[in-house]
Amino acid sequence: MTYTLVLLRHGESEWNALNLFTGWVDVHLTDKGVAEGKRAGELLKEADLLPDIVFTSLLRRAIMTADNALNAADRLWIPVIRDWRLNERHYGDLQGKNKEQVREQYGQEKFMEWRRSYDVPPPPISPDNPYSQAHDLRYAGIKVPKTECLKDVVERMVPYWDETISQELLTGKIVLVAAHGNSLRALVKHLDNIPDDEISKLNIPTGIPLVYELDENMRPVKPARYLDPEAAAAGAAAVANQGGK
Amino acid sequence: MTYTLVLLRHGESEWNALNLFTGWVDVHLTDKGVAEGKRAGELLKEADLLPDIVFTSLLRRAIMTADNALNAADRLWIPVIRDWRLNERHYGDLQGKNKEQVREQYGQEKFMEWRRSYDVPPPPISPDNPYSQAHDLRYAGIKVPKTECLKDVVERMVPYWDETISQELLTGKIVLVAAHGNSLRALVKHLDNIPDDEISKLNIPTGIPLVYELDENMRPVKPARYLDPEAAAAGAAAVANQGGK
Repeated sequence: MTYTLVLLRHGESEWNALNLFTGWVDVHLTDKGVAEGKRAGELLKEADLLPDIVFTSLLRRAIMTADNALNAADRLWIPVIRDWRLNERHYGDLQGKNKEQVREQYGQEKFMEWRRSYDVPPPPISPDNPYSQAHDLRYAGIKVPKTECLKDVVERMVPYWDETISQELLTGKIVLVAAHGNSLRALVKHLDNIPDDEISKLNIPTGIPLVYELDENMRPVKPARYLDPEAAAAGAAAVANQGGK
Repeated sequence: MTYTLVLLRHGESEWNALNLFTGWVDVHLTDKGVAEGKRAGELLKEADLLPDIVFTSLLRRAIMTADNALNAADRLWIPVIRDWRLNERHYGDLQGKNKEQVREQYGQEKFMEWRRSYDVPPPPISPDNPYSQAHDLRYAGIKVPKTECLKDVVERMVPYWDETISQELLTGKIVLVAAHGNSLRALVKHLDNIPDDEISKLNIPTGIPLVYELDENMRPVKPARYLDPEAAAAGAAAVANQGGK
């Protein structure tokens, strides 16, 4: 017996479209982002991969992408669990800043280090910054990050995977995780056992379901597959080129 | 200390617009229905009534109304519980039929008895009818109704209220219940202790939050209030007149 996990990165948000660093800022989807979610649901339905439970972050771009996908797949009624540990990487003081301006101000090397290094976080955000989540009630009871590198995301994500998400898989449910570029990279790094110095090459496209078949030890029995491989390859290339001019 | 409960009836669905009996058929919202949900969320935000947890039925018109409202109120991230016991009344063999045609075929008296009597269910639906839920996997493990009167809805709703919804209220959370005309009538009947022979007069308008303040015995300390009383009165009158020509 194998266990089926489906990962879905949210579609385009208003700040993706504006080329701003977003992180934990709770921006809306664009119309394109809404359409990406629906398309993801159609792909799930065509593949007869119908989730039994869905996990999302606490950010509306992931929540609405899940809903738009599940609505299109006629599975909007399944149980829902939302958790901050699926949130995007906290981008620290870069949140709300234009990517191009950050690149010009700090140079290409620093820019790419913040975006793609494993263990170098951006500068911390001040609690007074309007794009800080220090005073956001949805995070009452947790220590809200001031900034995160991908390693920090792995360290919050993997225990949640072990204790909660994988437990649902082991009951035989098809599990959908609707989340973000970096929280999903953290999970894929763990599942595929990708070394720290190779994870920078991994880019996950938006809106295309990524399907894992796992054994009882929660290890892939074969390489994960995108439900639309051609669109996924084009999407991953587009992510890789962001800010890369 | 009092406990705050907010009830919300879903906005216009495609079958409301077509004047068809809907019941457990899982139809989509219209654009008007989407807008009604957003408006409900704006009313919640203006009143500073921010839900801590949301309950919905398993039907997408209630689920999406809740999401559209919570998105507008910046509360999309709260915990979600979905349960079939919040579903609309099962309309039996009338599901999928035009209200006007049913009225002409069976006469005004029978039509109103099916719509508004407390204990007379419509004729049962055949499991072969495409609008039956006998083979719908979301209801695996429960005895799917073939038809329901309002009394049947009370009998499934009230135990769920006692065992689950009210328990969340008693922890001090503001609870939002996004559901349907008849599942909400069943709950209001229970909360306001409305006699069986008077419940037919109660009409709940769509898309306008109805707020209860309850004591520790889950009894209202004062009459429930709509967040937009004028629109609510107009909406209730419109519901009362449906098919009433």
